[in-house]
Amino acid sequence: MPAHIYTAFDEELKYLMRRISEMGGLAEQMVAESVRALVNSDAALAQKVISDDTIMDAAERDVGDKAIVTIAKRQPMAADLREIIGALRIASDLERVGDMGKNNAKRVMAVQGTGVPRKLARGIEHLSELALTQLKEVLDVYTTRSAEKAKSIRDRDEEIDAMYTSLFREMLTYMMEDPRNITTCTHLLFCAKNIERVGDHATNIAETIYYMTTGAQPEGERPKDDTTTAVGVVE
Amino acid sequence: MPAHIYTAFDEELKYLMRRISEMGGLAEQMVAESVRALVNSDAALAQKVISDDTIMDAAERDVGDKAIVTIAKRQPMAADLREIIGALRIASDLERVGDMGKNNAKRVMAVQGTGVPRKLARGIEHLSELALTQLKEVLDVYTTRSAEKAKSIRDRDEEIDAMYTSLFREMLTYMMEDPRNITTCTHLLFCAKNIERVGDHATNIAETIYYMTTGAQPEGERPKDDTTTAVGVVE
Repeated sequence: MPAHIYTAFDEELKYLMRRISEMGGLAEQMVAESVRALVNSDAALAQKVISDDTIMDAAERDVGDKAIVTIAKRQPMAADLREIIGALRIASDLERVGDMGKNNAKRVMAVQGTGVPRKLARGIEHLSELALTQLKEVLDVYTTRSAEKAKSIRDRDEEIDAMYTSLFREMLTYMMEDPRNITTCTHLLFCAKNIERVGDHATNIAETIYYMTTGAQPEGERPKDDTTTAVGVVE
Repeated sequence: MPAHIYTAFDEELKYLMRRISEMGGLAEQMVAESVRALVNSDAALAQKVISDDTIMDAAERDVGDKAIVTIAKRQPMAADLREIIGALRIASDLERVGDMGKNNAKRVMAVQGTGVPRKLARGIEHLSELALTQLKEVLDVYTTRSAEKAKSIRDRDEEIDAMYTSLFREMLTYMMEDPRNITTCTHLLFCAKNIERVGDHATNIAETIYYMTTGAQPEGERPKDDTTTAVGVVE
């Protein structure tokens, strides 16, 4: 947090930071629980994740309202202003991470009939561990404000992407082997995509932190591309 | 645009509005062209959409930079501040609409081998017409600033959703009928989902316009839920 002399303003920035941290914790939890619900066909846990989403939405609105009031009241410049605009952006990314958890949770009932094949369940769990580690790290960087670390997280999304692509191929294989797997695997494909998008949002947040800290956008192409779009291309 | 006495500030707001309109036009075009490329297996058009995405990204950064400078320099209050924060949000939604077009375009090569079955092509075209109509209307409302109209667009996402769900079921059927359709249909499922998300972004923009105009969030549950999550649920 940049240094300045208005204590009331400090309090307002701290409030935004605290809300962002809370949203981050809830977003992680929603994604982790959605995967657990999916793998264990736990409808009650899925329902909890779905209802947690209203808490997320309310938190994002609160951050938005407070940010606007703070800008209007304090008329901050430069780093202070970036701090507030950054909070708005991060709140929006975290709200969407929560949406990913909610969307996974809503698919629990649809895969309950067949259950999730063990090997695919392992793959989804592993993918979500990777994505959640990245989200956790980026939320830590939000507290410490290391531009260097933000940039290194941003450059590391490839690992998630490679794992997502291999899982994507595996799911296609399951579907081809037995048409009875098609409905379940289609839902799992979307779940895997949701989790891959959690990694994208972590990348967005890393870019926002870099911007908040330095006032600049990180250079170089964003590494967050989904390469499954090429699966099936005749080579 | 709210009335006030600073002409230079007016110019800056007009600049943001013009940029948003340009981004809106490009976003529409990218999605429409991506669908055309998909249906006609047109790799060159797909490549154009993919490279248009860098224009979108640059436009979003420009809106972000100008918005921050304007806030810092003019220290606007209330409606003027909401105007600028709203522009930031809308630019972010439009950039993501462009991403949806890009993601569709990247799947063109993967479905080229089998081509897109005629009936599914029709379905995707129809879905994208609906979503693009909604996007166009919401961009018109951005110019006219009718809170009432913004609210009515927001409440109309169900039609897109119903069509998406029926297309989703149809694609599952194609896959079940012939495993050779699985790879292509999986890509088409993601394309349909991308288009459905264009409708979600239009809904977001409608909410932002309502907020810019009234200072309040529209009441009532958001209607933008994806109901395909329940396909396969045993009833």
